[in-house]
Amino acid sequence: MTSLHALDALIVALRRLPGVGEKSASRMAHHLMQHDRAGAQLLSQALAHAAQSVQHCVRCYAFTSATLCETCLDPSRDASRLCVVETPADQTAIERTQSYKGLYFVLMGALSPLNGIGPQEVGVKRLFERVEHDGVVKEVILATNFTAEGEATAHVLSQAFKKRGIEVTRLARGVPLGSELEYVDLGTIAHAMVDRKSTP
Amino acid sequence: MTSLHALDALIVALRRLPGVGEKSASRMAHHLMQHDRAGAQLLSQALAHAAQSVQHCVRCYAFTSATLCETCLDPSRDASRLCVVETPADQTAIERTQSYKGLYFVLMGALSPLNGIGPQEVGVKRLFERVEHDGVVKEVILATNFTAEGEATAHVLSQAFKKRGIEVTRLARGVPLGSELEYVDLGTIAHAMVDRKSTP
Repeated sequence: MTSLHALDALIVALRRLPGVGEKSASRMAHHLMQHDRAGAQLLSQALAHAAQSVQHCVRCYAFTSATLCETCLDPSRDASRLCVVETPADQTAIERTQSYKGLYFVLMGALSPLNGIGPQEVGVKRLFERVEHDGVVKEVILATNFTAEGEATAHVLSQAFKKRGIEVTRLARGVPLGSELEYVDLGTIAHAMVDRKSTP
Repeated sequence: MTSLHALDALIVALRRLPGVGEKSASRMAHHLMQHDRAGAQLLSQALAHAAQSVQHCVRCYAFTSATLCETCLDPSRDASRLCVVETPADQTAIERTQSYKGLYFVLMGALSPLNGIGPQEVGVKRLFERVEHDGVVKEVILATNFTAEGEATAHVLSQAFKKRGIEVTRLARGVPLGSELEYVDLGTIAHAMVDRKSTP
């Protein structure tokens, strides 16, 4: 066992990656050892560097290597709009659309009382503090997921912000681009019907 | 760009893994940063250690951390049988079946003249040296892949070993376990028909 130890340890470690099972891990390890040792070294360094230096922006809680993220530091962003997302990955997805020029707040999760995740665990209190401290937010855009937890979180936040006189919006629900109605789930079609828009 | 640098660099590095595109790499990076920093550190160390210490066994060319791999060092293995595989991953697959107790030789590739991979590039010369130097190999089992390159390699090796008076066998071709004939490709069924066996 000792002579194979380094390769086996690598396979075990690769299984910590989401979506990577035993077969994929073995294939990745063999590929790196056989064809891409430089890639293995590069990935090793990138992992160590990221694990050490990636932290949360103190203002919006997105991932950053500094105290404040570049989005929060960007003076061209519209500070009167605040988009609330569950995770940094959701924020990245919205940024890639280039359809939004306001700021963000990352909850790092969604409310899920059944799993013991209440307002304390996700950044709800920090979100209210942030909005009150800034005093410039006019619209909160709720971009939590369209899952049970995400919808519940959006509902709770919506009620709370409306009480404080702040406009609250939610991403539109509807039929995804490129889809054929035959294969779209009924709930989505029903929502798209209710939220139908006049053609220009 | 600078503040996101560590995370972006990690995403780029993760794409060096086979089968990992931009979306998977982003998901892996976010998962590690958000939920499993310890996993990131562990994987970093495993990669560095493997890239540094994994080498090829001087006798069979499999991956090992020592000069000789544990299979070659195992006195209980039958040295008169030599199984020739293309890659260490193929060897691992055969080992996991526990159906073979002989030794191995890893070619590290297959002959592919169209891609400029001749006998020099894969370990054919080393294989012949190994068999002649040992002088105890009675049967060479060809377990190269059942692809055009693997079959061509098996053919070339088969001719060469037969000339030297060594018995040469090839893994059986046939219908995979658990498959329904309706969905098996015709070439496989044709081979299974030609190689049909008497029932016991």
